[in-house]
Order: sequence, then structure tokens, then C-alpha cells
Amino acid sequence: MVIVLKQIATEKNIKALISELQARGLSTNYSEGTSQTVLGIIGDTTKIDADDLQRLSSVESVKRISEPYKTVNRKMHPDDSIIKINDNVKIGEGFFNVIAGPCSVESEDQIIEVAQRVKKAGATLLRGGAFKPRTSPYAFQGLEAEGLDLLLKAKKATGLPIVTEIMNLIHLDLFADVDVIQVGARNMQNFDLLKVLGKCDKPILLKRGLANTFEEWLMSAEYIMAGGNHNVILCERGIRTFETFTRNTLDISAVPVLKKLTHLPIIVDPSHATGMRWLVEPLAKTAVAVGADGLMIEVHNDPSKALCDGAQSLDPDQFDVLMSDVKRRVQFEGKIL
Amino acid sequence: MVIVLKQIATEKNIKALISELQARGLSTNYSEGTSQTVLGIIGDTTKIDADDLQRLSSVESVKRISEPYKTVNRKMHPDDSIIKINDNVKIGEGFFNVIAGPCSVESEDQIIEVAQRVKKAGATLLRGGAFKPRTSPYAFQGLEAEGLDLLLKAKKATGLPIVTEIMNLIHLDLFADVDVIQVGARNMQNFDLLKVLGKCDKPILLKRGLANTFEEWLMSAEYIMAGGNHNVILCERGIRTFETFTRNTLDISAVPVLKKLTHLPIIVDPSHATGMRWLVEPLAKTAVAVGADGLMIEVHNDPSKALCDGAQSLDPDQFDVLMSDVKRRVQFEGKIL
Amino acid sequence: MVIVLKQIATEKNIKALISELQARGLSTNYSEGTSQTVLGIIGDTTKIDADDLQRLSSVESVKRISEPYKTVNRKMHPDDSIIKINDNVKIGEGFFNVIAGPCSVESEDQIIEVAQRVKKAGATLLRGGAFKPRTSPYAFQGLEAEGLDLLLKAKKATGLPIVTEIMNLIHLDLFADVDVIQVGARNMQNFDLLKVLGKCDKPILLKRGLANTFEEWLMSAEYIMAGGNHNVILCERGIRTFETFTRNTLDISAVPVLKKLTHLPIIVDPSHATGMRWLVEPLAKTAVAVGADGLMIEVHNDPSKALCDGAQSLDPDQFDVLMSDVKRRVQFEGKIL
Amino acid sequence: MVIVLKQIATEKNIKALISELQARGLSTNYSEGTSQTVLGIIGDTTKIDADDLQRLSSVESVKRISEPYKTVNRKMHPDDSIIKINDNVKIGEGFFNVIAGPCSVESEDQIIEVAQRVKKAGATLLRGGAFKPRTSPYAFQGLEAEGLDLLLKAKKATGLPIVTEIMNLIHLDLFADVDVIQVGARNMQNFDLLKVLGKCDKPILLKRGLANTFEEWLMSAEYIMAGGNHNVILCERGIRTFETFTRNTLDISAVPVLKKLTHLPIIVDPSHATGMRWLVEPLAKTAVAVGADGLMIEVHNDPSKALCDGAQSLDPDQFDVLMSDVKRRVQFEGKIL
Repeated sequence: MVIVLKQIATEKNIKALISELQARGLSTNYSEGTSQTVLGIIGDTTKIDADDLQRLSSVESVKRISEPYKTVNRKMHPDDSIIKINDNVKIGEGFFNVIAGPCSVESEDQIIEVAQRVKKAGATLLRGGAFKPRTSPYAFQGLEAEGLDLLLKAKKATGLPIVTEIMNLIHLDLFADVDVIQVGARNMQNFDLLKVLGKCDKPILLKRGLANTFEEWLMSAEYIMAGGNHNVILCERGIRTFETFTRNTLDISAVPVLKKLTHLPIIVDPSHATGMRWLVEPLAKTAVAVGADGLMIEVHNDPSKALCDGAQSLDPDQFDVLMSDVKRRVQFEGKIL
Repeated sequence: MVIVLKQIATEKNIKALISELQARGLSTNYSEGTSQTVLGIIGDTTKIDADDLQRLSSVESVKRISEPYKTVNRKMHPDDSIIKINDNVKIGEGFFNVIAGPCSVESEDQIIEVAQRVKKAGATLLRGGAFKPRTSPYAFQGLEAEGLDLLLKAKKATGLPIVTEIMNLIHLDLFADVDVIQVGARNMQNFDLLKVLGKCDKPILLKRGLANTFEEWLMSAEYIMAGGNHNVILCERGIRTFETFTRNTLDISAVPVLKKLTHLPIIVDPSHATGMRWLVEPLAKTAVAVGADGLMIEVHNDPSKALCDGAQSLDPDQFDVLMSDVKRRVQFEGKIL
Repeated sequence: MVIVLKQIATEKNIKALISELQARGLSTNYSEGTSQTVLGIIGDTTKIDADDLQRLSSVESVKRISEPYKTVNRKMHPDDSIIKINDNVKIGEGFFNVIAGPCSVESEDQIIEVAQRVKKAGATLLRGGAFKPRTSPYAFQGLEAEGLDLLLKAKKATGLPIVTEIMNLIHLDLFADVDVIQVGARNMQNFDLLKVLGKCDKPILLKRGLANTFEEWLMSAEYIMAGGNHNVILCERGIRTFETFTRNTLDISAVPVLKKLTHLPIIVDPSHATGMRWLVEPLAKTAVAVGADGLMIEVHNDPSKALCDGAQSLDPDQFDVLMSDVKRRVQFEGKIL
Repeated sequence: MVIVLKQIATEKNIKALISELQARGLSTNYSEGTSQTVLGIIGDTTKIDADDLQRLSSVESVKRISEPYKTVNRKMHPDDSIIKINDNVKIGEGFFNVIAGPCSVESEDQIIEVAQRVKKAGATLLRGGAFKPRTSPYAFQGLEAEGLDLLLKAKKATGLPIVTEIMNLIHLDLFADVDVIQVGARNMQNFDLLKVLGKCDKPILLKRGLANTFEEWLMSAEYIMAGGNHNVILCERGIRTFETFTRNTLDISAVPVLKKLTHLPIIVDPSHATGMRWLVEPLAKTAVAVGADGLMIEVHNDPSKALCDGAQSLDPDQFDVLMSDVKRRVQFEGKIL
């Protein structure tokens, strides 16, 4: 971390600053430039808040040099992490997983039919929303606890592990038999929820927030890992930009960037990234090519009747076509699906 | 709402669509253009999800014409709403309120000292964080329940109503004596929290999310009002853009836009909008001039020692200067502070 | 196009509006809803400016339904356009081209060495900047006319057609022997330049502006085509977002979206999209997979000494490795490189 | 400037880097931290391109500490610059100017009528577009040279100095009698145009680009000043964000930020910032309050018939009302209009 001092900083101010840093176990390197004086901080700066130091009247700006995250940092854990789900599914280096299913669980018939079709096509996990975050209070909010029961029935019928979203920490007990708990984009910085999930032992699928940087996303993963739960899977699902043709803008560079910064696996959700059915296939191809560890795709038995996100859902036949292409590509990359 | 049909839409598809709409109590107007055919929907479309209709294979796009919100809509409630707090504070048309205090409550002495100083300077409510949303799990997370107790002591000492942030619905009971419950930017779309707040009878200060549109913000207010709680105050606190010099970009046009779209009061937080102490005063001036109903400003007894957000906090003397200027300006606008 | 009328619009206003539209050869469809009245416009609305109609006091908003572009529109030209360069290079459906070379032409030795190496590795066109748009007036601005001469020497030495950027319409004569004229991101809406290029007969490589939508980009292509020059190649090179880790954010969805909206070929520039050498390869893979018609990649004989963009340039050995992978992938897609 | 070295950097690499910097007249300060080694650069770094240094394989990142601009920097010129126009108009500290007029010059009657009305209302300069940058090639492109003639007639009739946009450097001769040459948002980084304007002696009104940072904007001003022309006026006109309700998002913080970073005057254009007539007045108020040096406002004799931007234009009566309010506010701020 480098502190740029104000030209008006007095010797007394600077000494006080150095003392404060020493009290936190850090040493400093003082460097006087032509127009700026700079204080380099030497030591573990993970627990120092760069914004926080700007409160000091002698400080002009603070530049962070090391990453503010620790447990998620690849520098601390050079090998890729592999997240195991129920002993038979592995997410991470070498394995390619496809999580598929409807936006919302709507009925027993629906979720079991979709589960059977996506399993047959090659999906390795089943997704389905029971608790749904909706922009409008008047929109369908999900079947809630009943939806979780139906997902478990679909799991029983197919053997597919299930992935479903939690919206609220008081619901955690209801997720006891869920295999992977999803944290949605709007909850990526719901820190109280992250803390609770850090104390449970289930894999967490952490979606990127609509307007969150790579660093903020990794800090949210750090919240979970700091609690002791190291089973975190990241999911890029598009960010908000000025372009309105697509629902969001898929930031495909997230995959290689995060592969460099962290050891955690990362998957891609082309359905939410675009909001349009016909864009799912081309973007799924980019995810395989760029080195993602998997895909999350919305599939509905009858998208034209879906209670939510029908416009971005594939029907089972379309998903069959997609999967046969994805399998060829995964094989080309030398990975296992 | 206007539905643009695909060129490939068959007569059968279109009839099915018209029937579905009629089943929801809506009538339609069919208009065949040179290159596009359009179906106008007549009736209350508030409860129709425009994205949802795009699931249909015959639909090319859906354009919303009426607003998707109802209770917050000024068209339904032409007069400004005035939110009353403890009978002696009124927020809304004609009244200008200043909410001031530290980012975090740190100690009894600190919060009481700040409360006394901001009251003396003319603030009408006291802010202070007990539960703090922090990007890093290693940063100070607030004094939590103890912080709420200290705020209540400061309220007792000064008579100032208190405003403080809730991060989590299980904490609601702890907020029994709080006067205004704040929903932070990161929780603007924490819909489960909004639903719970819709059932309580306290005024809610709803901050705009980092990357949320005016419409999404109003939909979140609608969540609270749909639950029965009509005491909602909006707070613009800067949005995320490509510009990184300031922490966020204050969208000052939010004030006149929301004054047109809704009857709810709106205040401005120049501290979070910029992240820099020296920008608080100029932006506070714009808030008064543009017609905001108030300001929310971070004040700390000793910003250089603040446990968070010190860089954007004023000290009490700086706040005195600010307030004497704000008072002149409020008077110029013909409002009451 | 659909015009939403204000509730206060009088019958007289509406009649005047209908007359104005009729005078432009358009007919209308009037539809009175519960809360909104809507006027559908029937006829060719390409030449109507939606923003412009909002000047009328009776108009609340205008929603465009057909695209505002014509000649670039795939609806007018269902087959893919193939752009021929010097009879032996074809850009478009079925062909995959790689444009490679340094950010700047720096010397005869440099450009010839790079040209020979990229040709050997399989590049089909040579890039190199002679006129350089630089943020700072103190940065290297390119060799200008001399740079063009050196490019022509490299073309003579290798037979590779050359692609280079024009910054200014008075330079057009200097580009007489250039094969493809590039319009950079910062000039995408330099309309006077586009008009002049519309009158010449050379292929134009039109880069997307930093913060321009797909529609604006296509309108700029329309400027060139409206002048009579139908040889336009689009190039996605990343957009500006809130994420600052990468120089820009590659919007890979641009490829399938534009393939749907227009018949023009589209290539991808992963070098500018990220600004980082190690991200060029993974993003190049996504471009092949998603169906782009080619790549534009910065290659320098010695990136550590490059006068600009060294950080994102590959050296010739790295480019060899990249190309051997790209060739395998192009073959997998069933295209010709 | 601070260079963060890669962990793999060898002693040899580092020595070579230090030598390269010394060859440019800079000295260095070497500081080895726990996890990072940092090289501080001492000397004038204005002419060093931070991105450029990242080409080196030993460099992980480069953090700029001093500003990259020089002549525009307030540190080099602590007093406010005042730009004089025709001896009787002064733009800068203490003076508040209002530039008003139509988006486009449409006819002699129109421009003279508007000029007379805005002068009477208190405007101090007349604006009017002769060359118009339009997104669509099919939209009205301005009266061009004839438009300039009409502006000069309006100047003769009223004595108001005129401000009009240049789109293209070959037109410069046509601007011989224009008082202030405007560079539009889309040309803010048309560097060849900026260089030519740096060699002329006329005041330049430099609008902020749609997606350009404060630093890039100041670098464009630096282009003009580096050429010798120190008469630059900055104009904030809204930036592109995710919010689509307003045409752009006015970044009102630009005014105090630029007042700190540069000595150049800065004015605000609320018409383009919002695209909506009813938002011009509230945002004009914020510009006065925040300390801007003036306003630029679109006024049309009959906005409902305007050939462009009618939706954001005031009619002369609305402008009268606005000006009477603006005058009161300018007086309140202790400035002269």
C-alpha cells in the first residue's frame, strides 16, 4: 500500500501517521519526490481499509498494491480448488458441469419433467427457484417452501443434486437437503447472509452483483471463506452497462481474470446475461472456449407458459441441441462432462 | 403496453395471445403496419411483467407505456406526501430536514458529543450506524445492538429522532425505539427485507442502489407501500459510473425526476455520493437548489480517528459552517428548516 | 413507431399531429387505453427521428418499433455480405481472417520483421498505426505519412494487405494505396469523416465507440453505406464500464447480436478490449467460438520496447502459439483461415 | 509515479528499468515490501505514459501519483483563468454567463428572433448550430456555411457574441468571425481537431465526451493549450450511464472537482444533460448553486417545429421565466450576470 502525502503535511502529521501504522505492526518507507511525497507500507495490509486512511488530513490518496483478499487469493493457494458435491459431482479444473432447470419451480410435474429431460441431455445438476427475487411486488414470488419440496422430489426421481437460491438467512433451515445454495446477484453484498453461509458446510454458488467489480466479488467470497466455508463457486451472469439491447452485458473476461486472481471455480450463466433465448447458445460456446468450469442455463418444459424468465428459457429440445454441441466443445478442450 | 409481433406470428398465435390477455381482464387493439404488427393492451397493466410476455414465440418485443408502479405513483396521489416523525418532525413539501451524524456509532461519548453539536448547528435528525455493511470481512462491522443503545442515549440527551440502518430482517425487534429505519444501497433490492418493513409502521429511508434505475427504486418503494407502510423517504446517494475520481456520481436529476413520478419525499446524501469531505458542501448546495426535501451528512467528532468513512466526514466546526450556509439557502427557497 | 400522447393532449393537437405525419406519407392508428392514448405510425419510419417528435407538447413519449437503419439492416439484405480485399482476401461468412501487427509503425526493420513473422504464423492482413490517437499531447503520435510508406514497404515485402487508421479527412489522399481504412473508436461518431469515407471505394473497418450502443454503431455504418460504400467491416473492441481491472470490457455478445441485426461481417479485437497481453489468448478463443469473422491482434517484435500499447502486445513467438491454437479452433468451427 | 514489480522480476530486469528511467532524467526509490516490491519515480512524470511502462515483463502495475496534465493544472496556475470574448464578455471567476439559442440555425428570421429574445432576457452569448452532428445520416445536418452567415447576421442585429460547433478542421476558415468555437462531446477526443484549434487564437468551448473521465477531459484541454491557445472553457453536458430515463446523467460534481484540478472556467449545459425541457430549470439552479461560471441553454422560437432537439428546448417565454430566476440566484451567489 502506498500513501501519497499532501504537500501541506507537516513533519508532525507524518510522524503521527508512521506511529499509527507501526502500532498496527507495519513498517514504512519514506520517499520524497519532486512534486509528491510517498509513504510505502510494508507488511500485511489485508486488514487495512485504503478508503479509511483517507480520513487523515495529511493524506492525499492511498493506492493499494496487494490485493485486499486473502483466503480466496490464488497467491495463498496456487492450485485450483475443486468443490465436491455429494461425492459424485466435482466442480473445478478438468471437470465441466452444466446446471440446468427452470427459473421457477412451478409444479411437481413440471420440475420432474424438466429434471428428467436435462439429465438425459447431460446436465449434472438441477436448478430451480423456490424463493424468487422479483423487481415488482406484484410478480410471482415463487412457491417458497413447497418449491423446495418439489425440488427434492425431482432430485429423488433423477439423482441430480439441486441448486437453489436463498433470499434470507432465516430460511437456512429449509435448505438442509439442498446440495448447493445460490446467492443471487442482488444479494452478493448482503453481508449478514454471507456470514451465516460462511458458518454452514454446503457449497455456495455466488453470483456476481449487477454492478460489482471483480475485487468486490472476491471480497464477498472472502466473507464466506473467512467464516470457515471454503466451498465457494463463482458465477458470472452479466453486468449492467449503458447497452440496453441485452438485459445485461456478459463480461466473459471475468473467467480468465478470476482464474488468475483466485483458486475458486467459476461458471457462466448466459441466460441471465442476455435475457434472450437465441443468445444462450452462442454465449455458452464462449464460456466453454474461455475455460469456464461450467454453465448455468434456464430450461423450461414450455417456455411460452413459464411464470418467469420465459424469454430466456430454452425448451428441452433446444437444450438437447445445445448440449450435443457443448459436449463436442468440452471434449475439444480436453475436459470431462 | 404495446406488443410488437414477429413477422412469423401466425393468426393462431395471435388469437391465443389475445385470449390470454382477455383472460387477465385486458382488451387489445390490433394494428398492422408496413413492416411491423402491433398489439396495444388496454386496461390495468401494472401487474403484467413486460419481460414475461417475451417468452411467447410470436412476440418480438414489449414496450411498457404506463408505469409499472401504482401506490408510489404521483398520478394516483397528486399531492406530496409528508412523512411525520414523532409528531414534531415533518419530511416533505415545505420542510427541509438535515440528518447528520457519524458513519458509525463508536462510543457513548462520541455519539452524544456529535449529537449535541449537530443539533446545535441545526440538524433535525441524528444518523449513526450500528450495523455496518462493509466490503471487507476484516473491516469494522459496527457495535451492533450496543450501537443502537448508544443511539438511544444520544436521542435522550438531545431529543433528536434517530435514523439507523437495518441489514437483516431478524434484527427488526432491536429497532423498536428507532425513529427512522434506513435501508442501505446494497439492500435496495433485498425484497424479503422490504416486505417485512412494509408490515411495520415506522418511516423507512430507502437509499437508491448503486446501479439501480429510477423505476427499480420506485418498485422497491412499492414493495414497502404494498405491505401497508406508506411512510417511505427516498435518498439519492450517488450511482456507479465509469468515473472513478469520485466514489460515486451524484445523480442530482433524481430529485426533479422523482418529484414528478412520485409523491414521496426525497433527500440527498452528498457524503456517500462523493466520498470526499471537500465535495460535501458544494453538492449540499445543489440539493437545496434543486428542491430536495433534505440532506443526510456524515459528521464525526474527529474524522481523522473515525472507524469508517472518515475521508468523507465533516468535523463539527465544518458542519457549523455548512449549516449556516444551508440555512441561508433554505430560506432563499422559501422552505422551513 | 408508437407515440404515447399526454393526458392533456387536445383533439386539436392530435389532429395536427396526424396531419403532420400524413404530410410525411405516413398513416396512423389511434388507440385509446384506460390510462394512456397511443398513436401507431404506419409506413417507413426510418427517416423519422423519435427524439424529434418529443418536441410536441401533446407527446409524452415515442417508442421506436422498427430499426432506424436501412442499408445495414439484415432484413433488407438477408445474406451475409462478403468484403473482398485485393481479390485474394475475403472477409465474411465462412472465412476467418486475422489482422495482426504493431500498435505503431516505428521503423522499416520493425514493421517488415513483424509483417514477415505474422504472415508466417498465418495472419492474413497486416495492421500498423501511422497516425495515432493518444490521450496525451505529450505521447508519441505516430510516424504519420512516413509510417504509411513503411507499411507499403512491408506490404511489398510480404504481400499482406494493410489496415491502418485514419484520424482526419484531409489525410484521405495519403491512404490511396492502403487496403483497409480503419476508423478508431474515438472517431466512430466523427460524422464528417464517415461521410467522406462513404464516397470512397475502399473497405472500412469501423470500430465500436467506447460507450456506443449497437444501434449507434450501426447508424455510423449506415452513414458510410448511405454514401455508396458498402464495404464495411465492424470491429468490437470493448466498451467502457465501471470495471477498471481490464482497460475495457469486451462485449462478446456483440457478435451474435450484430449477426442478427446486420449482414456486415464483424471481427473482434481482444488486445484493446483488455489492455493485457495474457488476456488476448483466452478472449481470442471466445471470438472464434462465438462466430466472429476474424481477429485483430497487436503483435510487436519487442513489446518491452514498444512506443505504445506494449502491455497488450504479443511478441512473435507468443503470436505463433496463439495462431496454432486459433487455427485448430477455426477448423473445428468449419471455417477457412 | 509508483511501479509495482512482479515477484519474478530479476535483479537484471530491475537494473535495466532503473537505467531506462535514469536515461529519461528520472531517479528512483527502491522499496522492498513483504509481498511486493515497489519503485518510486522521482522527477517530472508528465511525459511518461503509465500504460506504456506496463509493456515491461518485470512490471506488475503502475500507479500514477501526480496528474498527467500540466498547463491546465491549477498547481501550475493557482489563480482562476478569465477568458475574454470581444473585450466586453468575461468568462470565469465572479462572472456568470448564459449562452442561449437554438440547437440549429434554421432561417434568418428564426435566429434573429431568438437572438433578440434571449438578449432581452439576459443571455450574454448566442448559440446556434450550423454544422450538426446527428446519429442518423437521414436527419437534418444543419445549414452549414449558410448557417454561419445567419449567425453573423444575428450577431450584428444584437451585438451578442456567437458560439457555434466545428465538426471538422477543414472548416476552420469559415469560423473566422465566430467568437467562440465549440467542440462537441463526440469530438472531445478528435485529437487532430484539437491540435488545429490549439494553433488558433479563438476561445474554445470544450464539451465533455459522453463517457470520458475528468482526466481525459483535462488532457484534451491540454492538447489545445499545448498548442499555445490558452482560451479554453469547459462544459459539462451529462455523461452516459445505465439510467435511461434522462438522455444523459448530469455529473454536477464535475464543477467543484474541476475547479480544484484546473484554473479553467466551467459551464453547465442542462439541455443536453437531460433531453427534457422540464428538467432544464431545476438543473440550471444546481449549476448556479454549485459554482459554475455559466449555463448553456437551448431556446427555440417554436420548439414544436424545431428541426432538432425540440424536446429539450425552451420557448422564449419559458426562457424569460428561467432567466428571472437565474438572475436572483446569481445575485445570491455574489456573482455578476
